[in-house]
Amino acid sequence: MPGALLTDLYELNMAASYLRRGMTADATFSLYVRSLPKARGFLVAAGLESCLDLLEDFGFTERDLAYLASIGFDDRAIEDFRGVSFDGDVWAVREGTVVYGEEPILEVTAPIPVAQLVETALLNRVTLHTTIASKAARYVVAAEGRQLVDFAFRRTHGGDAAMAVARDSAIVGFAATSNVEAARRYGLVAAGTMAHAFIEAFPTEEAAFVAFAEDHPERTTFLVDTYDTVNGVKTAIEVARRLGLTERLGVRLDSGDLDHLAREARKLLDDAELTTARIFASGGLDEHEVAELVKAGAPVDAFGVGTQLGVSADAPYVDSVYKLVEYEGRPTMKLSSGKVSAPGRKQVWRPTDGDHADVLGLRDEDTPEGTRPLLHEVMAGGRRVGPSPPLDAMRSVFEDEVAHVPTKARRLQHAEHLDVRTSEALVALTARAHRDALDRAGLDEGPRV
Amino acid sequence: MPGALLTDLYELNMAASYLRRGMTADATFSLYVRSLPKARGFLVAAGLESCLDLLEDFGFTERDLAYLASIGFDDRAIEDFRGVSFDGDVWAVREGTVVYGEEPILEVTAPIPVAQLVETALLNRVTLHTTIASKAARYVVAAEGRQLVDFAFRRTHGGDAAMAVARDSAIVGFAATSNVEAARRYGLVAAGTMAHAFIEAFPTEEAAFVAFAEDHPERTTFLVDTYDTVNGVKTAIEVARRLGLTERLGVRLDSGDLDHLAREARKLLDDAELTTARIFASGGLDEHEVAELVKAGAPVDAFGVGTQLGVSADAPYVDSVYKLVEYEGRPTMKLSSGKVSAPGRKQVWRPTDGDHADVLGLRDEDTPEGTRPLLHEVMAGGRRVGPSPPLDAMRSVFEDEVAHVPTKARRLQHAEHLDVRTSEALVALTARAHRDALDRAGLDEGPRV
Repeated sequence: MPGALLTDLYELNMAASYLRRGMTADATFSLYVRSLPKARGFLVAAGLESCLDLLEDFGFTERDLAYLASIGFDDRAIEDFRGVSFDGDVWAVREGTVVYGEEPILEVTAPIPVAQLVETALLNRVTLHTTIASKAARYVVAAEGRQLVDFAFRRTHGGDAAMAVARDSAIVGFAATSNVEAARRYGLVAAGTMAHAFIEAFPTEEAAFVAFAEDHPERTTFLVDTYDTVNGVKTAIEVARRLGLTERLGVRLDSGDLDHLAREARKLLDDAELTTARIFASGGLDEHEVAELVKAGAPVDAFGVGTQLGVSADAPYVDSVYKLVEYEGRPTMKLSSGKVSAPGRKQVWRPTDGDHADVLGLRDEDTPEGTRPLLHEVMAGGRRVGPSPPLDAMRSVFEDEVAHVPTKARRLQHAEHLDVRTSEALVALTARAHRDALDRAGLDEGPRV
Repeated sequence: MPGALLTDLYELNMAASYLRRGMTADATFSLYVRSLPKARGFLVAAGLESCLDLLEDFGFTERDLAYLASIGFDDRAIEDFRGVSFDGDVWAVREGTVVYGEEPILEVTAPIPVAQLVETALLNRVTLHTTIASKAARYVVAAEGRQLVDFAFRRTHGGDAAMAVARDSAIVGFAATSNVEAARRYGLVAAGTMAHAFIEAFPTEEAAFVAFAEDHPERTTFLVDTYDTVNGVKTAIEVARRLGLTERLGVRLDSGDLDHLAREARKLLDDAELTTARIFASGGLDEHEVAELVKAGAPVDAFGVGTQLGVSADAPYVDSVYKLVEYEGRPTMKLSSGKVSAPGRKQVWRPTDGDHADVLGLRDEDTPEGTRPLLHEVMAGGRRVGPSPPLDAMRSVFEDEVAHVPTKARRLQHAEHLDVRTSEALVALTARAHRDALDRAGLDEGPRV
């Protein structure tokens, strides 16, 4: 599906006007997060591949055009829309890159009608993926190397979101997902055992464990809290002994005081000489609860995390925008109260020593000494510049990046928002564009609120 | 796409065991929200049609089966999965119905393997739609009859969520959506004007307004805050006069002090004898801000609402579960700490006078006097019992329902959670099932934490 109707109506209104008036000069739009959610000290950029997929395929079907005619677009507009495809350029940061407020995640340069038409879909994709990758990264920080598994599917905002959660959590280091379709699509490890209903459907808990072990000898993690957790662990141990299970044995704790229960379970398993049996904890865990269990030394080997990750419950969106920064070679900006945007095609330079602030500047500036650029050309003339990186490569990007995030921005509570420095060239261009914007509005001075 | 892989791996593990063991007796699962988010006094049930679509089509493709074989399901499991389809029964509340904690939204009765397999997808859909419909309903309460338009697409969690937001907000009374694909799919009114970029692409704000009015004579709502709002309103008035626009004229305020600016705009428009021109407000509004503007008497005719609605920002999920309540005619329940579930097929009766608590009971009980049942049979033998209701009918359901929500539950702040009464028959069945569960777990008394 080319999906050109996956947009807001106003994009179509504007594109129709641009096309009718021959306004097809190149425009550059910058997609960035204005400021970070209060609870976030850093974000993890994601969603680029999904954006490039959309752009490669962008266009209207005849069915789309018929619908647009039915809601009032005239013949001229329909004819103009028929010829639309995306043949522009995209610069972007690599997926998995740590980003801060005001730093472009993606910049599109294309004839203004099409650069405008793709706004809604690009924002939607980058916002979803960046929100989720950023939340998942917090679990990775919290888990300090213990395994994490995505269990979010049942509570995500639909199927697209479920796929994004599985993928984006893998980028930041999750070991597996419960989502089978996502495992297939992205080549992830699918993980899962049984639900309480399975236990309840058998005459006894023990019978359920025996049946499961017989049917799935490779996956003998028993859910032990259906009736009573400690009793469930004992039953699991009996069944394991009787069936001679020693490899791949595990128990999953899904309710109650997980710290206490994990210690009891560990002791019972160790006493039974099942020292390699793993303990799996789940049940509505947020990153703070994971961090607490880890810090307390609870003997949990892996965490299954669902809802809180899947909807990024404490910060379910980022303040993402897609702003016109250049048109016909002219830098542009708006002056709206509290929402001023900076003009020009941008670049972000990150100090290689990790100790200093990033520099936000203009794309054609020289790279400042001791820094590296974060934005790269990823699409030219509507085609990808190189092959899509595998998720493993994105994970490497993230691992390199997160290790260099200053502690004050990386911590899970009371994280500070880092400053981004603005290059002199960008400061100068902003001043010039500001004067120009006032002229265009017929104003002598700054805007009133 | 039949979508049988849109599930958690554990559903497949369990289904494989059930099928292998000939455990294909009917199971009933009850889908409900355990308790309401703190900020919600009531929920609006939604997502049923999406669930029925899934169930009508449910099954594995050969490609699905090949993938499952590749991750370890044996020949026997694959053969068993090949024959799976949904031929069960579904009872549900009508979309648009107000529900409270513990009240079933949907109950599935089917052979246990398939009733289990559909868990993840049903939960995902009901959770998304109910979360969004419930949030949208709060805007409707806040707006007190002023128009509302869905602007959420750019910040929803993917395309599925964007479609759900447009649809569910329409069910509770939104007038239009910016989402063009959703407008097409659901027969909604598409709404939208222009973005700041459009203004910036023209030499002057005035030139942009003139061009837009010429190109879209049916949609002359001008975005006036790109540079300076009051100046923008004046420019809009000049353009309207020059072009003789009087019908369908409007201004959109997207930043700043909306109460103050709406009053200034109204005065300028009225002084120019443009008394029918409409004022449209947008810009990250939550339901409390809408309520405040309405209560203050700000002259806003319509509100465009986006992100806060689109992710249900203050409560991005509901605590939805899908619990086995009966298997082989035997009532079931789990005893997990803090997560006890009540057994048996249920019905909810709502007092017709609206003054008393709902009654949660068993499906085969007589309807208590002065009440009406909320759950109806909507699917029998895998087929819909009647035609899908149009969105208008769902909107009527909601309008009737919301008018009877007690004030203490309906208010936007400090809403109380209403109690639901439990029928004597359900109390008795719960006691019986509890004793049975203890027996199955080999316990003498209640579970320990």
